[in-house]
Amino acid sequence: MTVPEQKHIEVLSGTRFTVHYRIAGSKHDAEAKSEALRYEQTVEFPAELTPAGDIADHIVGRIEGFEARDDGAYDVTVSYADEVAGAELPQFLNVLFGNSSMTPGVRVERIDPSSAILAKFRGPRFGADGLRQTLGVAYRPLLMTALKPMGLSNENLAKIAYDCALGGIDIIKDDHGLGNQPITDFDERVRFCTDAVGRANRETGYRSVYAPNITGPARDLERRARFAREQGAGAVLYMPGLAGFDGMRALADDEDFGLPIISHPAFYGSFVTFPDNGFSHYALYGQLQRLAGADSSIYPNFGGRFSFSREECVSIVRGCNEEFGGMQPIFPTPGGGMNMKSIPDMRSVYGKDVIYLVGGGLHRHSDNLVENARHFRRLVTEGENA
Amino acid sequence: MTVPEQKHIEVLSGTRFTVHYRIAGSKHDAEAKSEALRYEQTVEFPAELTPAGDIADHIVGRIEGFEARDDGAYDVTVSYADEVAGAELPQFLNVLFGNSSMTPGVRVERIDPSSAILAKFRGPRFGADGLRQTLGVAYRPLLMTALKPMGLSNENLAKIAYDCALGGIDIIKDDHGLGNQPITDFDERVRFCTDAVGRANRETGYRSVYAPNITGPARDLERRARFAREQGAGAVLYMPGLAGFDGMRALADDEDFGLPIISHPAFYGSFVTFPDNGFSHYALYGQLQRLAGADSSIYPNFGGRFSFSREECVSIVRGCNEEFGGMQPIFPTPGGGMNMKSIPDMRSVYGKDVIYLVGGGLHRHSDNLVENARHFRRLVTEGENA
Repeated sequence: MTVPEQKHIEVLSGTRFTVHYRIAGSKHDAEAKSEALRYEQTVEFPAELTPAGDIADHIVGRIEGFEARDDGAYDVTVSYADEVAGAELPQFLNVLFGNSSMTPGVRVERIDPSSAILAKFRGPRFGADGLRQTLGVAYRPLLMTALKPMGLSNENLAKIAYDCALGGIDIIKDDHGLGNQPITDFDERVRFCTDAVGRANRETGYRSVYAPNITGPARDLERRARFAREQGAGAVLYMPGLAGFDGMRALADDEDFGLPIISHPAFYGSFVTFPDNGFSHYALYGQLQRLAGADSSIYPNFGGRFSFSREECVSIVRGCNEEFGGMQPIFPTPGGGMNMKSIPDMRSVYGKDVIYLVGGGLHRHSDNLVENARHFRRLVTEGENA
Repeated sequence: MTVPEQKHIEVLSGTRFTVHYRIAGSKHDAEAKSEALRYEQTVEFPAELTPAGDIADHIVGRIEGFEARDDGAYDVTVSYADEVAGAELPQFLNVLFGNSSMTPGVRVERIDPSSAILAKFRGPRFGADGLRQTLGVAYRPLLMTALKPMGLSNENLAKIAYDCALGGIDIIKDDHGLGNQPITDFDERVRFCTDAVGRANRETGYRSVYAPNITGPARDLERRARFAREQGAGAVLYMPGLAGFDGMRALADDEDFGLPIISHPAFYGSFVTFPDNGFSHYALYGQLQRLAGADSSIYPNFGGRFSFSREECVSIVRGCNEEFGGMQPIFPTPGGGMNMKSIPDMRSVYGKDVIYLVGGGLHRHSDNLVENARHFRRLVTEGENA
């Protein structure tokens, strides 16, 4: 034995959390992959050399279930000792899908909602209800748009923000490509756009908010978040694929920050592109977003310019709403090439607890942006009266 | 027109950077995807509504080349104005592959090495040569191992570190699952393991280093990095898939930190799992790592327990070494189920400028870890004399 003798691990509580994987392949392959997985995600050590005692019995993952799925793959339930993940999000994600991300055929389907470890994460600070309260919108779906196109001056982006707020759009976010570039200085943009939305609100009596994209250098994230808050932004946009899930979690946990967080799906689309690897839509756009503190989860709507199916979008709604460690439900926020014509169809899928994100499509209805925003609002509100 | 009139953008320099995408599908599909891509990654606005002038002419991406590849897909070269990305890594990555990550059929094949924007990133602080100097190893391949299995006490992990250092392994890193859990407190582990490796070095005269895994909560990363340095760690392990590429870039840029960085590929394996989406191995494990300041890029070796092919591994070596904006070459670091028997075969692929990472396999040779480490070292050194 090359490893020091150690039978006992003092700190083990005995509580475990559970993850459902979809594992593709023949039954034999899926069994072999499951067996490999429970070592790979924990001790990463040859089974025959793994020390007997608590390491073999508790630290190594356990196969708790193995069932055929309708799609020919297998639903494999694996449990892990809570202490393998601890209380920090990066390591929790690492246990879920660290090395196994490099294994074709393995997909994280669902984190078990009753896993005790979920209590270690506060999740969304606002959640869907909190966001409704903040925005003063009790029942109807919420409306979101994005400031674009990139290349406009900050003055012109602020004019668009003003028009959209005047037309009654609840959340006016930066397009996710607006960061802090020579073409659009972050601080200036935040000043101009918060000011523009504030002016519009004073005219309309609405409570529209501007949500700047704070995604940026790791060591400037906190400053941008604080600056956005100080300037009067009502929410922020964050891209966990680019800046990390834990940076979002830290914002949601930060009492002094305390703004709603809109999560944008840039960069990690590959996680859901093929069914045989990555995450389910349910897990990535629902569970992980809540775990990491988003209040709104943006994803491409079915029928838009991306490739998500209606069923996948329905599963995202479930992931945003179903019981998950007591964490609040959040708003599914379909966008990505949707337009105002698609709203009636979307109503049947999404109901009221949704944020409709219309970006470029908002500019298509007529030459008057304020009127387009009003039209968007009416479409959604009429839906409520129907 | 709903967008304010704006023909001119003052700040445009006229310099552009270039990305090669692999786009799958029929010629017609690939053309349509390319056309969509140049809008999607920039203005994200309907082409017919995009304002004429500098936005349409310079901000929207440009197709610079479109050629059939041998594999039936198309090599599509797209250029973007430098000002679209600016000088911050998250937005640069966002332009490369933000929304297009959600488009099946689009893969980032290669960032053009002559793109002027690359001068905005310092890249690796050490690079392969700097790491050789730090470790005092002029010619031979370097040796790396990982402390495992998870579940051992920090005292026992330190014993393993001591044995490995005594046996002459250059870099003794934390297994990537060792974070800061109840089973292994980060600060204590760093103290114990730096101490153990220091003691071994005093006995052997070698310059082995301990590389703790500093990946953790966003707001504790800097502290962990500083603590590791203060305690005498000689390098650190970082997982950009979990903590973000820019956190690594910030460490590499930080004069006060100044330790080599080993990048671990956990969590984003989905980027390379299927050829029709994500990144090429060349780009992900080579170019992006250098761009974000890694000195060593870990990836699963061919023939190990993951699925990378020999050709993919060869392309990673190229990505770590080929001219890339003047950034230093870094060490390809194949691991992931390799064992000592595979070293002779690997020699023909990797030559001398490589770090051999043997983790669990190191424990297989005999019951004596110090001897196993010596054997590993001899195998590699003999290769040099052959």
